Amino acid sequence: MNALSRLLKPQSVAIIGASADASKTAGRPVSYLLKHGFAGRIYPVNPKVDRIGDLPCYPDIAALPGVPDVGIVLLGAERAHIAVRELAERGTAAAIVLASGYTETGAEGARRQQQLIEAAGRMRILGPNTIGLVNLTDNIVLSATGALEMEHFPVGGIGVVSQSGGILGALLSRAAARGIGLSKLISTSNEVDLELADFIDHLADDEATKVIALYVETVRNPDKFRNACLKAARAGKPVVAFKIGRSEAGAQAAVSHTGALAGADRMYDALFKQVGVIRAQTFSDLLDMPAALATGRKLHGRRVAILTSTGGAGTLVSDDLGLAGFDTPAPDAATAEALRALQTGDHAVLDRNPIDVTLAGLKPDLLRGAIKVLLASPSYDALTVIVGSSSLAMPELLAGAIEDCLPHSDKPVIAYVSPHAPEVGALLTQRGVPAFAAAESCTAALRAMLQAADLQPQLEASAPAAAVPLEALPSGTLDEHQAKQLFARFGVPCAGERIAATPAEAEAAARELGGRVVLKILSAEITHKSDVGGVAVNLTPESIGTRLLAMASDVEAKAGVQPRRFLVQEMVAGGTELILGMHRDALGTAILLGMGGVTAELFKDTTMRLLPPEGGLSRADALAMAQELKTWPLLDGFRGRPKADVPALVDAIMAFSQMAAQLGERLVEAEINPVFVLPQGQGVRAADGVVVLA
Amino acid sequence: MNALSRLLKPQSVAIIGASADASKTAGRPVSYLLKHGFAGRIYPVNPKVDRIGDLPCYPDIAALPGVPDVGIVLLGAERAHIAVRELAERGTAAAIVLASGYTETGAEGARRQQQLIEAAGRMRILGPNTIGLVNLTDNIVLSATGALEMEHFPVGGIGVVSQSGGILGALLSRAAARGIGLSKLISTSNEVDLELADFIDHLADDEATKVIALYVETVRNPDKFRNACLKAARAGKPVVAFKIGRSEAGAQAAVSHTGALAGADRMYDALFKQVGVIRAQTFSDLLDMPAALATGRKLHGRRVAILTSTGGAGTLVSDDLGLAGFDTPAPDAATAEALRALQTGDHAVLDRNPIDVTLAGLKPDLLRGAIKVLLASPSYDALTVIVGSSSLAMPELLAGAIEDCLPHSDKPVIAYVSPHAPEVGALLTQRGVPAFAAAESCTAALRAMLQAADLQPQLEASAPAAAVPLEALPSGTLDEHQAKQLFARFGVPCAGERIAATPAEAEAAARELGGRVVLKILSAEITHKSDVGGVAVNLTPESIGTRLLAMASDVEAKAGVQPRRFLVQEMVAGGTELILGMHRDALGTAILLGMGGVTAELFKDTTMRLLPPEGGLSRADALAMAQELKTWPLLDGFRGRPKADVPALVDAIMAFSQMAAQLGERLVEAEINPVFVLPQGQGVRAADGVVVLA
Repeated sequence: MNALSRLLKPQSVAIIGASADASKTAGRPVSYLLKHGFAGRIYPVNPKVDRIGDLPCYPDIAALPGVPDVGIVLLGAERAHIAVRELAERGTAAAIVLASGYTETGAEGARRQQQLIEAAGRMRILGPNTIGLVNLTDNIVLSATGALEMEHFPVGGIGVVSQSGGILGALLSRAAARGIGLSKLISTSNEVDLELADFIDHLADDEATKVIALYVETVRNPDKFRNACLKAARAGKPVVAFKIGRSEAGAQAAVSHTGALAGADRMYDALFKQVGVIRAQTFSDLLDMPAALATGRKLHGRRVAILTSTGGAGTLVSDDLGLAGFDTPAPDAATAEALRALQTGDHAVLDRNPIDVTLAGLKPDLLRGAIKVLLASPSYDALTVIVGSSSLAMPELLAGAIEDCLPHSDKPVIAYVSPHAPEVGALLTQRGVPAFAAAESCTAALRAMLQAADLQPQLEASAPAAAVPLEALPSGTLDEHQAKQLFARFGVPCAGERIAATPAEAEAAARELGGRVVLKILSAEITHKSDVGGVAVNLTPESIGTRLLAMASDVEAKAGVQPRRFLVQEMVAGGTELILGMHRDALGTAILLGMGGVTAELFKDTTMRLLPPEGGLSRADALAMAQELKTWPLLDGFRGRPKADVPALVDAIMAFSQMAAQLGERLVEAEINPVFVLPQGQGVRAADGVVVLA
Repeated sequence: MNALSRLLKPQSVAIIGASADASKTAGRPVSYLLKHGFAGRIYPVNPKVDRIGDLPCYPDIAALPGVPDVGIVLLGAERAHIAVRELAERGTAAAIVLASGYTETGAEGARRQQQLIEAAGRMRILGPNTIGLVNLTDNIVLSATGALEMEHFPVGGIGVVSQSGGILGALLSRAAARGIGLSKLISTSNEVDLELADFIDHLADDEATKVIALYVETVRNPDKFRNACLKAARAGKPVVAFKIGRSEAGAQAAVSHTGALAGADRMYDALFKQVGVIRAQTFSDLLDMPAALATGRKLHGRRVAILTSTGGAGTLVSDDLGLAGFDTPAPDAATAEALRALQTGDHAVLDRNPIDVTLAGLKPDLLRGAIKVLLASPSYDALTVIVGSSSLAMPELLAGAIEDCLPHSDKPVIAYVSPHAPEVGALLTQRGVPAFAAAESCTAALRAMLQAADLQPQLEASAPAAAVPLEALPSGTLDEHQAKQLFARFGVPCAGERIAATPAEAEAAARELGGRVVLKILSAEITHKSDVGGVAVNLTPESIGTRLLAMASDVEAKAGVQPRRFLVQEMVAGGTELILGMHRDALGTAILLGMGGVTAELFKDTTMRLLPPEGGLSRADALAMAQELKTWPLLDGFRGRPKADVPALVDAIMAFSQMAAQLGERLVEAEINPVFVLPQGQGVRAADGVVVLA
């Protein structure tokens, strides 16, 4: 058995600093181990106490009669490392350190944390600052969470990994109250050693775990996290994550312009999407979605039948589903006919959905019949049963009737409980019909089941591209021409341009390029050319010379620098402007695509993908990015506009990502703004850009 | 006493069709009246039964020993009208009709509904298809809702009016479980007579009611609704409304282009905003917001202190508050010093918020001290207390400690309960600290308290404008020139233009207007001029003649009609394009302002205001509309753009609204698209528009 298996399923547990007073935090672990039926050996350690209940208490770790698989260290931060060293010396697999007062409190705490790591040596540590772990599958609770005061916890297929101990307690008690069965819960907290990814990896192999739920404050090791999530995906286990830090996103804006549009939280969005993690939008989703996924049912369409005996609640659920893009179509003729044959009440109107069958007095046979008809109907992909107060009198009949129908179909069946009736919801959930008390929860559950049906981790690199030879690459900020040359070497088409220093050279360049042209100053120092009067558009060979002279004196007046070089560039017209950029932070390097123009900027219409470890983005990812833009219709023929050359845009995104992948850390900043996407068949043109190289 | 008072607080109640079997729906009203302590006279009516419990049962209404204030009619739709007629004849104030099978089921039901109205005469009717009403203030339950199976209901200051009976039951039982005190609950349902507005009006006068909560499916009588809400606002009673039908909004798109952008649900948004109704975004908000408002506390800023003993949950609440634009600043130096003086634990770090005071073992004095410090701090406008599992062991101490501090401040204090502990939440709520189990609920509660602090119904008309003389107004679709003349008569500045029929006239017009001009065909029949080649821009007097001839043949080829008249219009440049339109549906006539351009259209960036009964929009409303646009920064100097002439835009909105007000039903359709808003001091120009007159 490896150390993680010994930690999660120990044969013996030592509790260092155990108190005989079960009402104290230090008294809880022993008390909870006993209360929840731990079958292995329990070794309380406390020099001041002889016995704790029926158990002998040992004066120190050296005195233990055997090597414990796990040591729960309840000492304060000043002394915890001593116990950790002694446990390590005895060959304990892992120590769970509950004390707080480490890095989260400042420099002195960080020193203590380092001391702890050194004391552990090769022994694994969970924590510090953790509330421990709970293995419901095997009745093993290694935790001081007050949630364990509850008597009974439904056992099931959801494994929970939380970076907060308090949240672990909240999830444990909330799940129990709702009849949602869990397998393991682990609070990783400070993660000096064992972290999120270790437990995702472990749960991916755990037979009892079918779904993994994560409460994430930060991902400390993105590569490990990615590999663990991909492993879970290969094992067919959906991973649902709720991440804190959504609203600090904006404040942690990055340095470059495109970075400013994309906060760190959006990096997590991209990471989750790419490794097949379903993102919980609210904390409630973090139980609702796994509860639905734990049924193993997946949703293969968006058409939901709502069966109700109470009009208002059905409408409520239908309304919220509609907001999320689900359909609630009326029954087709054959389905309506089959419902009518059940004699569902005088006033039943079967031309609508919610389908109100006036289940007067709740006749289980009628309910069973209606559910079977709706599950068999080709018009529906899922069924939501509304539980009104009329059903409360006989919850067993109701639950039984729905449960009977489940084997006849693999379509998702969920329930909405309209009145306050948590016991009815818990009963239904335990019988395989996840029940919810909020319309938004029903929607989230169905959304998760839809996502799970189509969940392919997308962290694929493009086919390995031949490395582009890059001899003699300069350092520092490139000028616009150099930046575009770099883009072009990786395959991003750029607007035609020539360098000119004099009016005569500019005129010759304009003639050579043909059509109208743009004149810009060329300087690595001045990045905001427009602000100093360094851009002029719509020029002809005849007008460009005069304009150049005027621009030179204008820029000198405004920027205090006389521009010596100019760029004459073909004027690109008739395309859609986008921004193609890069953002790098602790999670990795991301490619960013954004709609150009001031209106799109106000709406922050951007999307991101993290670079896979092996190289640039895949074609599928690049296309998905474009299609994810809220303004995608602008590229797709909206209101009679010409369709844009999307294949060329996809090629450009891939080429840009290839550049970022090959240059790695050398590429400090890179952005093409704008890149014009021309109509179908006419390609794209990078018209301006910034590159900073290390 | 008026009929409504007799209905809500009857001295005597007849139950027509009462069953002796309390488990049947028809047995419930008598059983519930008794169970919940009705002190008046109860007259069951049923010819087949002699007694129901201790009560004599009467064979028919004529046999009743007195005139009941209220009759609860439990008969089916086929017979209900007979009982209603008999009750009316005896002088009953109001009948509550529970039967379904009326208009909601089709034509035959509509006929029955008409029959019911005629039978009632001057007696008031609640329903049909209602579950009745519950008056908790006076222990009077006139309802069959199964929610009344619960034993105890907290009595408080929230009055509920619901257009769904099932939802009434859900709110009643959910509020009870959470310790939220209600005053009255009324289910209006089909509203053949008494409707939402009647009860809002009544509750505005009801001493026991401090907050009004509405579950709205439709507003049948907008004027009455508006007056009732304004009355509640004048009485200082916040009204919170949850409205169904949010997602059908798009499908119910209206006829004109701007109407298509504005679904009916947005009309409700405008109505609610204008009459000072706080909109509940989710069904959960409909209890969360009133629970917070019932404390009478209002929020006068966005800075929230979060006091916690469990890190994870504090972060969760903080994160969600941040998403909604609240601030959670760290304590100022004096506040931190005062907290430190309480000796809040070794590791307490007071440079951050959530403020984690490590309330080990929950010392009430420490908690009391920390709450007082935070409520007194000038850095905070409100306090959220996080309840972790460590507090669960002694909920009374916790609730008492918080309650003790309430009199020292009028700032809002709410609680978030992290573990599953509904009894703790209910206790806190009952003690004046609204408690929530979701971070989103905390945010909604604070948002409502913020809105309530600044709630002024805005349904003000502009100062009455002199009616514009409109002799000889044509009917039907106006041509563009006529439409603009109409706009101009009400004071909307339009781009300069001339009508021309020949190349020579066009050339003369162009010279007269000066600068570049636009040429358009002028026709009331062809509304989509661009589609048939009927628009050309950027023309000079020299080029316009030739262009006119080309356009004439082009349009003839495409539209099959030879254009005989043309519009030569000055070309407006350098402004921001907006749309100014009108939308009319069952709720009234609304003025719509939208950002122009295809990107803004994709983001549906529009806003609406309903016309007040007395006239056009006020200046404040017109300005608020512009500022509500998500793209308002485009008018306000975003990224170095020139500031737009907002005062001129406001004048134009008011003028347009004045036109809609004066023309009333005669104005079938009206839209200015685009209206250019030029830089400050340069005004606005209507450049194109549509008007259809009845």
